[in-house]
Amino acid sequence: MRTTIARREVGPRDVLIEIRYAGICHSDIHTVRGEWGAVPYPLTVGHEIVGRVAQVGAEVTRHAVGDRVGVGCMVNSCRECDNCRAGQEQYCLKGNTQTYAGVDRDGTVTQGGYSTHVVVDEDFVLRVPENIPYETAAPLLCAGITTYSPLAHWNAGPGKKVAVVGLGGLGHLAVKIAAAMGAEVTVLSQTLGKKDDGLAFGAEHYHATNDPATFEALKNTFDLIINTVSAPIDMAAYLSLLRLDGTLVNVGAPPQPLPVPVFTLFANRRSFAGSGIGSIAETQEMLDFCAERGIAPEVEVIDADAVNEAYERVLASDVRYRFVIDIDTLR
Amino acid sequence: MRTTIARREVGPRDVLIEIRYAGICHSDIHTVRGEWGAVPYPLTVGHEIVGRVAQVGAEVTRHAVGDRVGVGCMVNSCRECDNCRAGQEQYCLKGNTQTYAGVDRDGTVTQGGYSTHVVVDEDFVLRVPENIPYETAAPLLCAGITTYSPLAHWNAGPGKKVAVVGLGGLGHLAVKIAAAMGAEVTVLSQTLGKKDDGLAFGAEHYHATNDPATFEALKNTFDLIINTVSAPIDMAAYLSLLRLDGTLVNVGAPPQPLPVPVFTLFANRRSFAGSGIGSIAETQEMLDFCAERGIAPEVEVIDADAVNEAYERVLASDVRYRFVIDIDTLR
Repeated sequence: MRTTIARREVGPRDVLIEIRYAGICHSDIHTVRGEWGAVPYPLTVGHEIVGRVAQVGAEVTRHAVGDRVGVGCMVNSCRECDNCRAGQEQYCLKGNTQTYAGVDRDGTVTQGGYSTHVVVDEDFVLRVPENIPYETAAPLLCAGITTYSPLAHWNAGPGKKVAVVGLGGLGHLAVKIAAAMGAEVTVLSQTLGKKDDGLAFGAEHYHATNDPATFEALKNTFDLIINTVSAPIDMAAYLSLLRLDGTLVNVGAPPQPLPVPVFTLFANRRSFAGSGIGSIAETQEMLDFCAERGIAPEVEVIDADAVNEAYERVLASDVRYRFVIDIDTLR
Repeated sequence: MRTTIARREVGPRDVLIEIRYAGICHSDIHTVRGEWGAVPYPLTVGHEIVGRVAQVGAEVTRHAVGDRVGVGCMVNSCRECDNCRAGQEQYCLKGNTQTYAGVDRDGTVTQGGYSTHVVVDEDFVLRVPENIPYETAAPLLCAGITTYSPLAHWNAGPGKKVAVVGLGGLGHLAVKIAAAMGAEVTVLSQTLGKKDDGLAFGAEHYHATNDPATFEALKNTFDLIINTVSAPIDMAAYLSLLRLDGTLVNVGAPPQPLPVPVFTLFANRRSFAGSGIGSIAETQEMLDFCAERGIAPEVEVIDADAVNEAYERVLASDVRYRFVIDIDTLR
């Protein structure tokens, strides 16, 4: 449904962005359907946003009119807590301000990127390198940083064996990024249906998790497992794949608690961790890394009118690998 | 019940130890009552063993007759797997040989330390420093290393805030060791009943977990939580106490899986991990550290005839803080 929403006036430290493309993230669907709690309707979602700077406030120094820029999952934070001061504002102890359905510091409800324009504090606006096309830059701002950050934090690189669980929007970027970092990458997917894709993205190995032999063959193997699946998984089975001091990091967000057998953690001194997006500085680092290494998501560009249909296809796992809305079709 | 068990002949790389004291660990009780699986009766338990070397095999180089020595939770490992070769034989991929109820490499069932003598491969025998009395050295060999290892691995030390959950046999040593490492230590116990003890052991803070205000006041506080409790805990509540990049490490061994809410892990990039005893080299390091810092467990020495009564008191949490059997009462 098309409607008109208000953006705040461009303040002294704000940037007005003319949006060109917006990615579709599964979070958008959870949110608009009320699966993650009450929704402050009317609401526009979308937190993979790219476009061009159309106007800047008087005190803005980081961005200029005409710059290629992006906005991800957050648009503000308290800037005063220990985590903000440590440069980890994604973990703001007062809660970072989400790009949509959040309450910004001026008290207004934030509105997302399925929209022609957005006004954002300059500190939360990223520079999009020239050699990343707008439409492929968009998914990097959520799916890209969400996988880059744990791969960097847990030292994916040469000599490390990394498994990626699930080959969807997040998973396919996790494979490309981990491979570019120099890790030996294995995809763990329900079936072998996307095996050719996985290997083309940089994985060296590809196993079907619907085959119990996979778990027997790969026991005690991985330094790091990035789980992108938002449904519950058999924690004992997946944790048993970790070698000494290995960590399974969830970036998928199942609503239910996951039952973790403690004896499986005792073996190999294993860890189970969570990771949420990344800081603004790390998001910029990720964009620059992807530009340098030629990493881009696989996208299917759609018109604004096709969003509802795209949602159904996301839910049916019928997308390879990320839908991106051409916002020019909304003007 | 007293009985006679056979020990193997002293082989070329074996040490015969005349046992002086053996600690009572909750694991002993779980095992003899069949709570951790079928028991290979007749069985003698006990894996906190100290005594004097009475005889050595022809090829033994690490120990000599008369030496003060100890044996902990394991007496062998495969020595060939990746973990053994990395000096982490406690995580032997074929399973280390447990001190009792294990199957040693010669096919015999291992028998524990509630016994006058034991024969152990020299590589799994520890040196007990002169200034640690036998009776207080015993509990270091399980309770000591089980808490020292995760404290060392997760860098407890100056500037770090460490919480210890449960002030029992393991917990009281965790407090002493963490404080000696220089960390700021908080005890989280069900009530304030042992507060004076906890502060005397080196904790700076002591909170009751039966008071919900504890969890509100300490949110986002700790770098490391060592959970010594073997019963299920409210994982969301305890994990919420971790600050950025904090880790909750279980050394307690609840038989049930613990339900872990993933959104609580996302906040502060938290981790939930397990840790099992420590390597032989690290156990020696721990003994030397305790000797140097004057760290010793609080023990209550009992006669061999009092073991069954002591078990009942352990189950009733009526011990401050570890029972140690005077093996001379068994001769």
